[in-house]
Amino acid sequence: MTTTPPTPWTLARRAERMNPSVIREILKVTERPGIISFGGGLPSARTFPVAEFALACAKVLRDDAPAALQYAASEGFRPLIDMVVERLPWKVDPAQVLITTGSQQGLDLVAKVLADSGSRVLVETPTYLGALQAFAPMEPEIVSVASDEYGIDVDDLQRQWRPDSRFLYVLPNFQNPTGRTMTEARRSALVARAAQLGLPLVEDNPYGDLWFDGPPPAPLTARNPDGCIYLGSFSKVLAPGLRLGFLVAPRAVFPKLLQAKQAADLHSPGFNQRIVAEVMQGGFLDRHVPTIRTLYKAQRDAMLAALAREFPAAGVDADERMTWNTPDGGMFLWARLPQGMNAVDLLPRAVDKGVAYVPGAAFYADKADPRTLRLSFVTPSVAEIERGVAALAAAVREYMPVNA
Amino acid sequence: MTTTPPTPWTLARRAERMNPSVIREILKVTERPGIISFGGGLPSARTFPVAEFALACAKVLRDDAPAALQYAASEGFRPLIDMVVERLPWKVDPAQVLITTGSQQGLDLVAKVLADSGSRVLVETPTYLGALQAFAPMEPEIVSVASDEYGIDVDDLQRQWRPDSRFLYVLPNFQNPTGRTMTEARRSALVARAAQLGLPLVEDNPYGDLWFDGPPPAPLTARNPDGCIYLGSFSKVLAPGLRLGFLVAPRAVFPKLLQAKQAADLHSPGFNQRIVAEVMQGGFLDRHVPTIRTLYKAQRDAMLAALAREFPAAGVDADERMTWNTPDGGMFLWARLPQGMNAVDLLPRAVDKGVAYVPGAAFYADKADPRTLRLSFVTPSVAEIERGVAALAAAVREYMPVNA
Repeated sequence: MTTTPPTPWTLARRAERMNPSVIREILKVTERPGIISFGGGLPSARTFPVAEFALACAKVLRDDAPAALQYAASEGFRPLIDMVVERLPWKVDPAQVLITTGSQQGLDLVAKVLADSGSRVLVETPTYLGALQAFAPMEPEIVSVASDEYGIDVDDLQRQWRPDSRFLYVLPNFQNPTGRTMTEARRSALVARAAQLGLPLVEDNPYGDLWFDGPPPAPLTARNPDGCIYLGSFSKVLAPGLRLGFLVAPRAVFPKLLQAKQAADLHSPGFNQRIVAEVMQGGFLDRHVPTIRTLYKAQRDAMLAALAREFPAAGVDADERMTWNTPDGGMFLWARLPQGMNAVDLLPRAVDKGVAYVPGAAFYADKADPRTLRLSFVTPSVAEIERGVAALAAAVREYMPVNA
Repeated sequence: MTTTPPTPWTLARRAERMNPSVIREILKVTERPGIISFGGGLPSARTFPVAEFALACAKVLRDDAPAALQYAASEGFRPLIDMVVERLPWKVDPAQVLITTGSQQGLDLVAKVLADSGSRVLVETPTYLGALQAFAPMEPEIVSVASDEYGIDVDDLQRQWRPDSRFLYVLPNFQNPTGRTMTEARRSALVARAAQLGLPLVEDNPYGDLWFDGPPPAPLTARNPDGCIYLGSFSKVLAPGLRLGFLVAPRAVFPKLLQAKQAADLHSPGFNQRIVAEVMQGGFLDRHVPTIRTLYKAQRDAMLAALAREFPAAGVDADERMTWNTPDGGMFLWARLPQGMNAVDLLPRAVDKGVAYVPGAAFYADKADPRTLRLSFVTPSVAEIERGVAALAAAVREYMPVNA
């Protein structure tokens, strides 16, 4: 009897660029009971409209099961597409909308259709980690554009631009990871500069509905629909576990995105699309989303208050203290440790104290700021936020160099 | 006021390889009322366990909503993975199973992780169109290996093999499009030859449970698990509209497939995974799948009887008549038109008579046989099968060259 020789698996070059998500690895640690997690970007389960989903499932299976459970068109379920169109603040032809398996899939499709090996893709500093992961397998050179508290620096965009730059990926509203929002002036300047450069924009807007005091300025895509691909999601306004998002693309690229979608998973689950369409009927989101805003705003306020209490600024030099921003919506707050500290090194100490977060370094395509960290304020309760920030402060105090 | 200059979208090279599915385009025509379609590979809606799904949705949302609707692990829902492992006829570690968004996604992930631009990917002649679509964006050279009624010719495999051949894609059970099944001897020879060549196998098995008289021989992967990636699906035994499949991969490639999965859509819908796990509890498939087998076997028999009646062989030379095979399971039958006829040209005439099919040419990576056509016997009823085959025969008779 002969032994089967071992098979030498040769991986594609692009596999070298694939890495386990730092966040995933951190989340594994933070799933330990008793750890308060500011780490994951998990919507609060209190916001999931469970009763509405239950009614919708029963109705869809009663009235429309043969179609809901069958193979379906790659574009998506037309009534859901029409609802997407109706909610967008610019004129969109339903033939430009593609339902995706979460907006993460939109990033995969965009990279497949636009990014060649060696071509340039521009991103914010820092940027959404999942976008870096989705773009990397297509082997582009991913280049960070300098960004400030309002996002992309349009002059640096011009400096980083090359003729083979395929697109700029930008998340203008309550960005993941920083929580920052682009101002009206910055949006207007960015759209104008991108158009001058002939640079397509890929605008990701999963959090735009989650504003606290007033809606953010109009999307970039609304200002130049033929120069932008827009990505949206149902994960933050309904629930992530259905894995539904959408993209809106101009006619120049839509057919190829549709073909890439078909090759990727044929279509997104028709059952889920019908559930979401059923739940959304009669303006449900107009009643539901304000309740999410109220909840998240209270949790942001609790985190801001806890940070101010636990990290008092009085008498400490600006660079010697913990700093953070005040996001106007979304799920994340961005903080920066005192000089000389490193958020990766601090993490195990913080976990020892019972709290976790994501070190900011994970979100940079290059030139990471090791002092930064992302704090999600939506998953834990207000009481947990208070205990978690106190634990974080205790870890920071112990980590302080003795001579500080 | 200045006008925004138009954005010049530059598509990735790979976009040139993306094409609208011929099947999709045909299906659009055949959705016209009154057309009997042998075209689509749509499971019969009569087989969808609607009542079980309804109970499962209610239970999952009652008992487990916060987890079912939340973000989740990229690997998949562990109880569902355990059920997959339990049903596979070889020893599988649950850590080698990845739940995918339909088995189509498995093809996308495999191509991403294994196929470099310019490397070689080997396929059967003919092969599953969706696999060609999933592989093409990674820009491999896709090469057909000669195949007969039992699948791959292992000697031609050796001839087509090159050192940069990354894998052979093979669908051994009731193949799409031909309905053919690899014999025990052929499987054994293929696995041995692939191991000698150091060539990984990607085994796709969406139809394996749908046998009519007896189960097919053991999977290729069971014979050499470290040399194979195995793809499975819930689409044909439960319903396609939930978009759930799975892959089983050796440790040499699993981590990269998992990372590619995470980048592609984070994870498959946790809600759907729980519904399927709930429905599968207590051995449901052991009771349900036999009912699908019985139904499809009766429909295959009806198609065979109708073909024999409408295309009598008596007194016609072998090459001058319509021929077809007798699949032992699955959803498709493969037919070949008389000499001089072309299935693409025949299609509009057939649609005029009220019947549609997919020309076989769509399923060849190269060197298509223009006389072939794929007939699905599972979507239409027995009465429709009889009328449809009669309509097809009428179209063929009219298309016959006058001097025949």
